[in-house]
Amino acid sequence: MAKGVLCVLSGFSGSGKGTIMKEVVNRYDYALSVSATTRKPREGEQEGVSYFFLTTDEFKSMIAENGFIEWAQYVGNYYGTPRAYVEEKLSAGKDVILEIEPQGAMQVKEQYPDAVLIFVLPPSGEELYRRLTGRGTETEEVIRSRMKRASEEAAYIDQYDYVVINDDLGESVEAVHAIIRSARERRSAHAEATERICSEIKIMVP
Amino acid sequence: MAKGVLCVLSGFSGSGKGTIMKEVVNRYDYALSVSATTRKPREGEQEGVSYFFLTTDEFKSMIAENGFIEWAQYVGNYYGTPRAYVEEKLSAGKDVILEIEPQGAMQVKEQYPDAVLIFVLPPSGEELYRRLTGRGTETEEVIRSRMKRASEEAAYIDQYDYVVINDDLGESVEAVHAIIRSARERRSAHAEATERICSEIKIMVP
Repeated sequence: MAKGVLCVLSGFSGSGKGTIMKEVVNRYDYALSVSATTRKPREGEQEGVSYFFLTTDEFKSMIAENGFIEWAQYVGNYYGTPRAYVEEKLSAGKDVILEIEPQGAMQVKEQYPDAVLIFVLPPSGEELYRRLTGRGTETEEVIRSRMKRASEEAAYIDQYDYVVINDDLGESVEAVHAIIRSARERRSAHAEATERICSEIKIMVP
Repeated sequence: MAKGVLCVLSGFSGSGKGTIMKEVVNRYDYALSVSATTRKPREGEQEGVSYFFLTTDEFKSMIAENGFIEWAQYVGNYYGTPRAYVEEKLSAGKDVILEIEPQGAMQVKEQYPDAVLIFVLPPSGEELYRRLTGRGTETEEVIRSRMKRASEEAAYIDQYDYVVINDDLGESVEAVHAIIRSARERRSAHAEATERICSEIKIMVP
């Protein structure tokens, strides 16, 4: 059976990548990878759904065993993508979507050169600011730091295969779905079958 | 406005590429290029729908004026894809599908490096033979020559970006649609917008 497609979705905070991903998984049959973290669960977060919650020691020994596809430290906590789940799904022919930061995306690309990298952009700088303030839950300082981080993450866009400008949620969802669907038809994905079919034809020609 | 995607669809006679293309154009909003030819119209063929029917002199002067994206000679007749229609549609942001032979596809790829090349394969050699004989209209000799040509055309598959194995028409149509849809989201297609959005964000960060 053909292996599944590994898709990495990144984007600025406020780009809407989380909403796109939820909706893609809702509409289509993709496997969503659950991250591990050492930060404390927040109200309503469920083990194995929101995150796998680990102690720092557990996390570090998983790093030592090469148990993460990618991992990083933010504000004192570790975050990572466990390798076992992803590999199992890909082997079963299932497409997997990872929502991760650009630095993690670079780690994935190195280990899985066939991974498809998508960067989600807001339609404008103005709109990004509006979405970040519109949440109404963040201080002006937090918003500024998100905008700053966005301007830093922009340097990574050149490493992505696709850019989706998230103007309309429905359109963006269809775009992400089409990108993953099309990756299943890359020539390399059908190399074995192509070989077989062409040999069969050659044999039939005298 | 972003330019449309130029898609080239090739495949063995009997692969079902023509049926796929008709159905893709039926279901989705693609422009179908009409070829020009010097062969005589067959029963029921309409000028400007099936083909543009030209005299050999007309065809040759269009070649001289670089009026074709690609052209070739088969069994004494000329066939070609007029450039004007394709360029007009692409400029208007419309995606264009060309159903052409591998040699023509190579000519297109040279002039339009961003063109997306799809090769349609039958699920097996056996099935190709079955489809060719199943038409019931061809002699054994014609069928053999089609199989032979298929085995020659197979050498070109390495130059294609995607391979669609036409086992189920509906699936194949969705695959082709996804490939073209995803090509609109290639990073290069959004270079200008990406530049603009990232500049806007940088300006807003003090």
